[in-house]
Amino acid sequence: MNVGSPEFSMINAIFKQLKRDDPSIIINVGDDAAVTCIPPGFQLVSTMDTLVSNVHFFSDIAPTKIAHKALAVNLSDIAAMGAMPTHVLIALTMPENDPAWLNEFCRGLTPLLDKFNVQVIGGDLAKGPLSISIQAQGIVPNGKAVCRNGAVQGDRIFVTNSLGGPAYALHCLEQGHPPERIDKNCLAQLHSPLPRVAAGQKLLGVANSMIDISDGALSDLAHILAASNLAAVINVDDIPVPPVLQGMLKLGTPSDTSFVRHCALNGGDDYELLFTVEKERVSDAYQLMSEAGEDVTCIGEIVESHAAPSILCVDSQGKRVELAPEGYQHF
Amino acid sequence: MNVGSPEFSMINAIFKQLKRDDPSIIINVGDDAAVTCIPPGFQLVSTMDTLVSNVHFFSDIAPTKIAHKALAVNLSDIAAMGAMPTHVLIALTMPENDPAWLNEFCRGLTPLLDKFNVQVIGGDLAKGPLSISIQAQGIVPNGKAVCRNGAVQGDRIFVTNSLGGPAYALHCLEQGHPPERIDKNCLAQLHSPLPRVAAGQKLLGVANSMIDISDGALSDLAHILAASNLAAVINVDDIPVPPVLQGMLKLGTPSDTSFVRHCALNGGDDYELLFTVEKERVSDAYQLMSEAGEDVTCIGEIVESHAAPSILCVDSQGKRVELAPEGYQHF
Repeated sequence: MNVGSPEFSMINAIFKQLKRDDPSIIINVGDDAAVTCIPPGFQLVSTMDTLVSNVHFFSDIAPTKIAHKALAVNLSDIAAMGAMPTHVLIALTMPENDPAWLNEFCRGLTPLLDKFNVQVIGGDLAKGPLSISIQAQGIVPNGKAVCRNGAVQGDRIFVTNSLGGPAYALHCLEQGHPPERIDKNCLAQLHSPLPRVAAGQKLLGVANSMIDISDGALSDLAHILAASNLAAVINVDDIPVPPVLQGMLKLGTPSDTSFVRHCALNGGDDYELLFTVEKERVSDAYQLMSEAGEDVTCIGEIVESHAAPSILCVDSQGKRVELAPEGYQHF
Repeated sequence: MNVGSPEFSMINAIFKQLKRDDPSIIINVGDDAAVTCIPPGFQLVSTMDTLVSNVHFFSDIAPTKIAHKALAVNLSDIAAMGAMPTHVLIALTMPENDPAWLNEFCRGLTPLLDKFNVQVIGGDLAKGPLSISIQAQGIVPNGKAVCRNGAVQGDRIFVTNSLGGPAYALHCLEQGHPPERIDKNCLAQLHSPLPRVAAGQKLLGVANSMIDISDGALSDLAHILAASNLAAVINVDDIPVPPVLQGMLKLGTPSDTSFVRHCALNGGDDYELLFTVEKERVSDAYQLMSEAGEDVTCIGEIVESHAAPSILCVDSQGKRVELAPEGYQHF
């Protein structure tokens, strides 16, 4: 009698492609559980995020893109703690046994796994509506993780790279624009975001607080403010946006400006880091980010909270701009 | 502007009920990721399993039962490594915001969390078809995890408690029997299995190999045999079954006997431990299991593999019984 459970073979087939030797792995895929080592002086960082078909991605998106994004959003959470991602477990639910789809899915995982030297140590494959849960693990030196509750009054607020590109691309898709006529960079950022892993680690000991932007910059900043019991002033004219949105701002109609600000501040799906640094360490932060090859922009300042945690948006003339954190609504 | 993402509030509401102080947790639910400590001298054990509505459970089952089972199957995998479960992350996908359902779901998690002192350190809540992914973590002394590939020729094969009760209860449900007329113990084992955490840890250093029975005893034994490159002889008359199935065996019709054997050996969903112990340590194993309050039964022996990994089933007269490992098919 031979072992031939189809699930067993499929899981083996998936993970065989992804298996890498790594001294941190004592027992790899294929047992009841994996066993790994945490180096002395380090703590374990754990997160888990699910992407559901037709909720978080269009069902006709290529499996390589689904895989990339599911992995990216989890590695982004690890990055936002200032941690180094090490291992992931992947639970995949799919309606039918589709080896070709699975193969493409694996192919989509490889670039990020390789880039960040992350190993797949386990997972589960179940029959059901298409969805992907990934649990990501990382390590951080004892007591050094960068949390949401560490912001201090006077801290400058930074974001990496640019905001709003993915929201703009999603808007175009929802309007029925053919993908080939949508700005390539924005579309790539929507489908294949690059988690800011190097930046996150560089900011250990420099950033007082940090979060990754998934629901929208204002919404995610509000989490820092709530956890730190502080408020913020944001200069909306300082928000970095990609060239295609810069072009719309130059057109200068108020509705264009308002659309761009909405994409950049409430759009979400950016997977850039938002972090706060005390004034005296701002030049250190610029230096470190330049070493990590990341652009960063100061977009505002942490201020005292007089009432509920709040965000005041102003333009470069100091005029108040009405923008509420109306990030992605999960329900 | 107040933080009011419904997902944020729901996650907070779920996890507030479950939050416990624990010195191993440095950063708990509510940040991008959780941060935990692994004690010196221990390794991290990680597993992840998904339960999908209408695939792994009937959609009308009480949320307390779904929660219990989703947690139990994961803790069972940790137990099967001889590890102590410590932390879990829970990703829940549900079709609509249903606080009452969520509340019941949390209530269903509590008994096992409390019993085994396991903490919920994170998770995700997404809109989509009902399914639950749990990622469980545990710790095991360095290099001591009990794997599938450690079986040795001559090892005696043991199972904890009894097999086949859950498969019998599921069969009755599928036949349309009202739950109140189905054997209470079997039904409880189907809906609310108790992972054998204490037994698993006691067997560290005694069991050569171990697995938990989820797909069916023969199917799961076959995983040990494949990993260890060995074969096994099982005495089907030694398989421990619950009283209701003992009763059916006493009726003595061949089809009853065959049905009971099928439930016990291919039924699955037992979440008992199957482990192998070298002959000289069998009395140690009985002693330790008695200390853990677990019944154990020797059901066979590991033998040399002449060809493919294989299982020979015999009855107490030594007569060959035709039973193939046809455990739960995931696709």
